Amino acid sequence: MIFAKGEYLERLHRTKERMAARGIEVLLVTDPANMNYLSGYDGWSFYVHQLLIVTADDEQPAWIGRAQDARAAEVTTWLKLESIIGYPDDYVQSTERHPMDFVADHLKARSRDRHCIAVEMDNTYFTAACFASLQRNLPDARLEDATSLVNWVRTVKSAAEIELMQQAARIVERVMGVAAEAVRPGVRQCDAVARIYQAQIEGTKDYGGDYTAIAPLLPTGAGTSTPHLTWTDQPFRKGEATILELAGCRHRYHCPMARTVHLGPPPEKLADTAKVVIEGLQAALETVKPGVTCEEVEAAWRRVIARHGIVKDSRIGYATGLAYPPDWGERTISLRPGDQTELQPNMTLHLIPAVWLDDCGVEISECIRVTEDAAETFCRFPRQLIVEG
Amino acid sequence: MIFAKGEYLERLHRTKERMAARGIEVLLVTDPANMNYLSGYDGWSFYVHQLLIVTADDEQPAWIGRAQDARAAEVTTWLKLESIIGYPDDYVQSTERHPMDFVADHLKARSRDRHCIAVEMDNTYFTAACFASLQRNLPDARLEDATSLVNWVRTVKSAAEIELMQQAARIVERVMGVAAEAVRPGVRQCDAVARIYQAQIEGTKDYGGDYTAIAPLLPTGAGTSTPHLTWTDQPFRKGEATILELAGCRHRYHCPMARTVHLGPPPEKLADTAKVVIEGLQAALETVKPGVTCEEVEAAWRRVIARHGIVKDSRIGYATGLAYPPDWGERTISLRPGDQTELQPNMTLHLIPAVWLDDCGVEISECIRVTEDAAETFCRFPRQLIVEG
Repeated sequence: MIFAKGEYLERLHRTKERMAARGIEVLLVTDPANMNYLSGYDGWSFYVHQLLIVTADDEQPAWIGRAQDARAAEVTTWLKLESIIGYPDDYVQSTERHPMDFVADHLKARSRDRHCIAVEMDNTYFTAACFASLQRNLPDARLEDATSLVNWVRTVKSAAEIELMQQAARIVERVMGVAAEAVRPGVRQCDAVARIYQAQIEGTKDYGGDYTAIAPLLPTGAGTSTPHLTWTDQPFRKGEATILELAGCRHRYHCPMARTVHLGPPPEKLADTAKVVIEGLQAALETVKPGVTCEEVEAAWRRVIARHGIVKDSRIGYATGLAYPPDWGERTISLRPGDQTELQPNMTLHLIPAVWLDDCGVEISECIRVTEDAAETFCRFPRQLIVEG
Repeated sequence: MIFAKGEYLERLHRTKERMAARGIEVLLVTDPANMNYLSGYDGWSFYVHQLLIVTADDEQPAWIGRAQDARAAEVTTWLKLESIIGYPDDYVQSTERHPMDFVADHLKARSRDRHCIAVEMDNTYFTAACFASLQRNLPDARLEDATSLVNWVRTVKSAAEIELMQQAARIVERVMGVAAEAVRPGVRQCDAVARIYQAQIEGTKDYGGDYTAIAPLLPTGAGTSTPHLTWTDQPFRKGEATILELAGCRHRYHCPMARTVHLGPPPEKLADTAKVVIEGLQAALETVKPGVTCEEVEAAWRRVIARHGIVKDSRIGYATGLAYPPDWGERTISLRPGDQTELQPNMTLHLIPAVWLDDCGVEISECIRVTEDAAETFCRFPRQLIVEG
């Protein structure tokens, strides 16, 4: 187990408080990060349906997943054996029966089928078919939407979680150094990414790395005008920019970082854009402290770029930490107009302001912790456009 | 574009045939592999909602996704610019508006809101909230379940797809060689996995590798009794087994392979189990030819292990090929009792029989293509328990 049992109990307690405030008696937790957060469960088994059942009155959650993964639950969670329940393999990707039918039977057998049962309606792994199964099988239940309920419990990190993110920061500092070295004219993009992956997983001498929830993102050349392209086996070219959006990961806790590399003397437009991004990022960072709202942080960025005649509509940051594919964002806080969440100490955010022009783009980011009175960056890595060759 | 435009049109044609057979006028394709299959779209943007709209009468699908990813659609698809539509960033992970509200408005504006609209109810990225939005916004539509409709179109591969899987096979042969070398007593698991990732992404001199839809799976020691654990930073130990379930990937096409490594002379129980797995795999492979059903292939395996007193309930294989995280299985064919799908030429399957005992397990697999009269393995790699040191 990665955390002390007491920490899991405390997380569960805070989850139950939120459940109680909303009259939720049973919560079905299907988001793999939320499952890990409450139970410790860790395995690449989220491609089949699995969940935790948290109830108001049971001391510990029940884990339900594919029978062959029950042993992984024994190995990685703090749950008692009798709380770990495997469903038979003929529920897997079947057109005749759905794993949620099994879950519904389980709830009926425990007389939970007339309760207020909440589900994570818009968390990635809770499909429309999951919900349809519950509706069909539990006609007397009151089904409620608890999207991101546990995600919100996760926003304020414990000391032990911060420590893992600091370890992830040491990893990503090393990874970004390797990446900046690897991007050279004539080098195939895939060969650079191979070195990036190697550094991510090797980690440091003291602790190894974990897989990151997003693959290395590496738009290059004209591709830098869009953020989510992965690599090809074409070579990097002199006179082109490459955006590196990478992370270090330690026991599923992420520290992301983005930098932009230009091979050869950068065109004035790119260099100027980088300056604006750095100035805007600095302004946003200086705004961060407990009590400030998320939209105020974004407004500081927006004021800077407006002064330079740039308008940008997408959010400039989000909560990050514990995550599984496909996203290292926690899906709670967004730094954008309208988000009036007040920052609290030990919230952890990825501030990733970016400007994409018609034919190029710049991303330069910092992953931060909100302290008692400011922002503390996890990484120590030069905050600049990287110019090589 | 990875394939000729004609190939995409042909895929679309076969999709529309299946739609017509079921009276479906509009199909919302949210599975990233299905989106790629029909349009070429490729980017790590599936952590936000995105889709293709395929209609019976439009010549080409519409792509709808986050505005900042529209440029990635321009770069990677064969679609006309006017078929690529971005939704504003304030739809992203918002509690006030859902991207499917935007999609519903789009359908209404085109008078599609009284049609039979089919959705992929149980494909990973179609959440319950997506469906709820459509129900709320399109009260006059007839919503139908088309889970895996496009997945089934994908089961028979074209020559160009087979070629990519053959390239992925060359990659995974190399990767498994690297892995078998890397697993040594005293080596940290993470350091072995770092080398595995490096080999996966480097690919070969002639073509680079892509990220695989499942991370390297590497249960070791007592962990081999369960299949989906990833690595730690503990060292491998003499006298212990490690299961390596890995893949090569080329332009999102996978060739998976599993082998089991034992450090030092294997205990008799493990060696015997490996022999049974190899014999059972061989029996299953010899059964494969067009017209044979999937359950018949599994039965051949089951007869062999029964003779050795082993009972195993989980499926021994599935269709594979084009895939995105979290799964390189295509979610159509399962080699298990009850699956009466008849094999056809150029179906591609991962036969991964495994036996997990109380304290150890063995997996040895082959990825195959169904030929005109037999099974052809993609890889040439010794089919045996690997014993090192």
